[in-house]
Amino acid sequence: MVPHTSVSGGGGGPFTGLSALEGAGEADISFLSNPRNARMLDGTRAGIVFVPETLEADAPPGRVYVRMPNPSLGLALVAERMERSLDPKPPAGVHPSAVVDPSAEVDGSAYVGPLCVVEAGVRVGAGAVLTAQVYLGRGSNVGEDTRMHAQAVLHRYCELGRRCVIHSGAVIGADGFGFETEDGRHRKVPQIGRVVVGDDVEIGANSAIDRARFAETRVGRGTKIDNLVQIGHNVTIGEHCFLCAGVGIAGSVKVGNYVVIAGQVGTAGHIEIGDFTQVGGQAGVSKSLPPKSLVTGTPATDLKHQRRLEAMVRRLPKLFKKVGALEAQLAGE
Amino acid sequence: MVPHTSVSGGGGGPFTGLSALEGAGEADISFLSNPRNARMLDGTRAGIVFVPETLEADAPPGRVYVRMPNPSLGLALVAERMERSLDPKPPAGVHPSAVVDPSAEVDGSAYVGPLCVVEAGVRVGAGAVLTAQVYLGRGSNVGEDTRMHAQAVLHRYCELGRRCVIHSGAVIGADGFGFETEDGRHRKVPQIGRVVVGDDVEIGANSAIDRARFAETRVGRGTKIDNLVQIGHNVTIGEHCFLCAGVGIAGSVKVGNYVVIAGQVGTAGHIEIGDFTQVGGQAGVSKSLPPKSLVTGTPATDLKHQRRLEAMVRRLPKLFKKVGALEAQLAGE
Amino acid sequence: MVPHTSVSGGGGGPFTGLSALEGAGEADISFLSNPRNARMLDGTRAGIVFVPETLEADAPPGRVYVRMPNPSLGLALVAERMERSLDPKPPAGVHPSAVVDPSAEVDGSAYVGPLCVVEAGVRVGAGAVLTAQVYLGRGSNVGEDTRMHAQAVLHRYCELGRRCVIHSGAVIGADGFGFETEDGRHRKVPQIGRVVVGDDVEIGANSAIDRARFAETRVGRGTKIDNLVQIGHNVTIGEHCFLCAGVGIAGSVKVGNYVVIAGQVGTAGHIEIGDFTQVGGQAGVSKSLPPKSLVTGTPATDLKHQRRLEAMVRRLPKLFKKVGALEAQLAGE
Repeated sequence: MVPHTSVSGGGGGPFTGLSALEGAGEADISFLSNPRNARMLDGTRAGIVFVPETLEADAPPGRVYVRMPNPSLGLALVAERMERSLDPKPPAGVHPSAVVDPSAEVDGSAYVGPLCVVEAGVRVGAGAVLTAQVYLGRGSNVGEDTRMHAQAVLHRYCELGRRCVIHSGAVIGADGFGFETEDGRHRKVPQIGRVVVGDDVEIGANSAIDRARFAETRVGRGTKIDNLVQIGHNVTIGEHCFLCAGVGIAGSVKVGNYVVIAGQVGTAGHIEIGDFTQVGGQAGVSKSLPPKSLVTGTPATDLKHQRRLEAMVRRLPKLFKKVGALEAQLAGE
Repeated sequence: MVPHTSVSGGGGGPFTGLSALEGAGEADISFLSNPRNARMLDGTRAGIVFVPETLEADAPPGRVYVRMPNPSLGLALVAERMERSLDPKPPAGVHPSAVVDPSAEVDGSAYVGPLCVVEAGVRVGAGAVLTAQVYLGRGSNVGEDTRMHAQAVLHRYCELGRRCVIHSGAVIGADGFGFETEDGRHRKVPQIGRVVVGDDVEIGANSAIDRARFAETRVGRGTKIDNLVQIGHNVTIGEHCFLCAGVGIAGSVKVGNYVVIAGQVGTAGHIEIGDFTQVGGQAGVSKSLPPKSLVTGTPATDLKHQRRLEAMVRRLPKLFKKVGALEAQLAGE
Repeated sequence: MVPHTSVSGGGGGPFTGLSALEGAGEADISFLSNPRNARMLDGTRAGIVFVPETLEADAPPGRVYVRMPNPSLGLALVAERMERSLDPKPPAGVHPSAVVDPSAEVDGSAYVGPLCVVEAGVRVGAGAVLTAQVYLGRGSNVGEDTRMHAQAVLHRYCELGRRCVIHSGAVIGADGFGFETEDGRHRKVPQIGRVVVGDDVEIGANSAIDRARFAETRVGRGTKIDNLVQIGHNVTIGEHCFLCAGVGIAGSVKVGNYVVIAGQVGTAGHIEIGDFTQVGGQAGVSKSLPPKSLVTGTPATDLKHQRRLEAMVRRLPKLFKKVGALEAQLAGE
């Protein structure tokens, strides 16, 4: 049972599914996050609902309300158990179809799935899972209990922390985009650095994080990166950040801790984004931002100011009319 | 022969290639879609041209015009035959290098290509083709005559309809981006739902469609999704839509039927986009849109109004001058 | 030693690493690109610094300055040697786990790594390297000394030039996004063309370049394409261009030579972008651009003009006030 809960009402059972309130059936467990949405409880048929402690309403007959501080989290804990039965952790060992270099050190409790390639000098930590068709480049390092889903790629000498989740198609440690141009011709600048990812990081499907030119591209512990995100070479992402889908962070950018960057945002290179900053969707961040900035738009501007400017642009037709009227009035005098 | 056609003019043969009008040689078949572009016929050297029924011009000596209601479609039918010879369907069977769990049910007429991984409980329907290195997660389901190109990924319990085309690098059913944040730390919310894709859907290279938190992320039949598209968890995409390259649909969005979303558009989460709506390239859709909306810009605005606002922004230098002149005039009085 | 260099100062050794000035230790070699940043030399601990010929300062005790025309290039040459030891070229041959059709012609000096799939009629040129899990479709062609990283995909009949670098997850030659719509239903238009990539091209991780409808999608020699870039069918990209991460080029666009397109730019289809044009980040290019254009914004506008318009938008609050004051003044007369 989830700690700090109290139960009211009484229904039947058994309960076999989890569901959002809308669409739930009598055998489902569901949840209400915000007491202000309490009227959503009227429409649901869920048998058990996890509700906030502060909810005043009582459960109608045939339904159970379980009160707790964070109902969404409570349901997550139940869902974790369900997930373990839907998708059990594979048994330890190396699948016979995997190609593992003899110099690689794979912990006895790790799983290397079918058709993975593990190059020379790799280390795979205790409890790590490589689902299938994963590629680990020479000298790379997968931390304990980290899971790499099918077809994830970790290139040479790159490093993943503990308990990370790397989704399918993610490419960690491809070359940075660095060239010297002479007479219009581009000569590749070798990218001999690597990528270092901290503990408890999640990296989404088909995202790409480039190796540094010399040293390290870094992603701090606890940071969560969505799908199709691009992180350029030499970038440092701090701890406990969110980078939503489609974000592009240009080379050598420093992102602080607890930063939230919404979908499809792009940044210029070599800038700093301060701790606790939040950047709105599709924004273009062209300059460094101090801590606790709240910006949106292209070029990225203080959120309230940007909304005000947008409102003024929408009122331009009126402004043009007004100026025309003033001109006419003055000309008529 | 394509139905409803009539032929005029007379040339040689044989005809060995298909080509756009520009760049076609005498041995090529080509097409003209729109009679208004009839002057493009002057420049071509194509031996046979499929033309609209309404075209008035006659074919010059040595060239054949074939009149039909939809010349582009006509050429497509010819091209389909050509494609079957360029890229013949592989013979039924499972390649010996594929790793197929004994509990998977692969129809005898399906093809499982080299180095594919098929996990426990998977079903692969009649006539389906898994080109090579495809991954099918536990309990997933591939419909009849669906084709998955090299390195496509379908995760656990997800489902593809009949006659779908899934391109290389597409990832269907990775975890949704869902976390509970407490004291600045992000705890993963299990994503125990799945993705259900209807019949006749196409999903482009390196696109990602996330599994639902509880129930289903859905893509309706006949919908075509281009490359590098992101679809978040719990999203419903209707039937017969187009989603062009680089589009990002945030979590829990509902997109209606017959919707067209141009390249690099992004949406906020939890909104609804009505049937027959068209969204212009790079737009940022922050609010729900009623059916038949025609919008563009960020924030997305009625197309005509947005174009008017853009025109006014371009005229701002003049407006500033006018206001300056008015101020000077009044100050001078 | 790099040509055209002169050495001043004198320190110890040995030197074991390369580093940016910031973060370098005494055993590192570093570089200064621009003499205007000469004060960055004060903070560094690098043992050897490659500096511009025009730098006036002398090396302090214990440090060596090596003067050369292009210090960044100089360091790149050193780094190339280092890279060859970090990531040695694999020995020639076909890994026994690769699945290679007997009709494929793999040069004796090429390397086909573990779990690659090489279909019928493929040619792999001398010195080419397929790292691991690469897919080469029927009749495709990999030029001499080209390297395809793990899980890169080249589809049927497509062609890569010499000395190309194709990064992990790149998909070259998926179907173009072409459909005929009748009564709201979309019928696939066969895409029977291919992709032809010139010499010395680099294509980034998880990028996608679609095959042409009939003829060829082309990427000219020397062009460098970053991660997560989309290039539609029938596109021609010229020589020696840069396409940065997240760019989307719509179908049938012609991009000239020496063009630079910054991150997340999108274009309309069927337009031409002239030689030497530069497009700013996130721009939306809706119309053709003459050679040497310098544009940014959506819709893409001359760079200086766009900056001026942005400044005027930021001054809109003042303009509204001014007009209000004028109205009050006139009403009060």
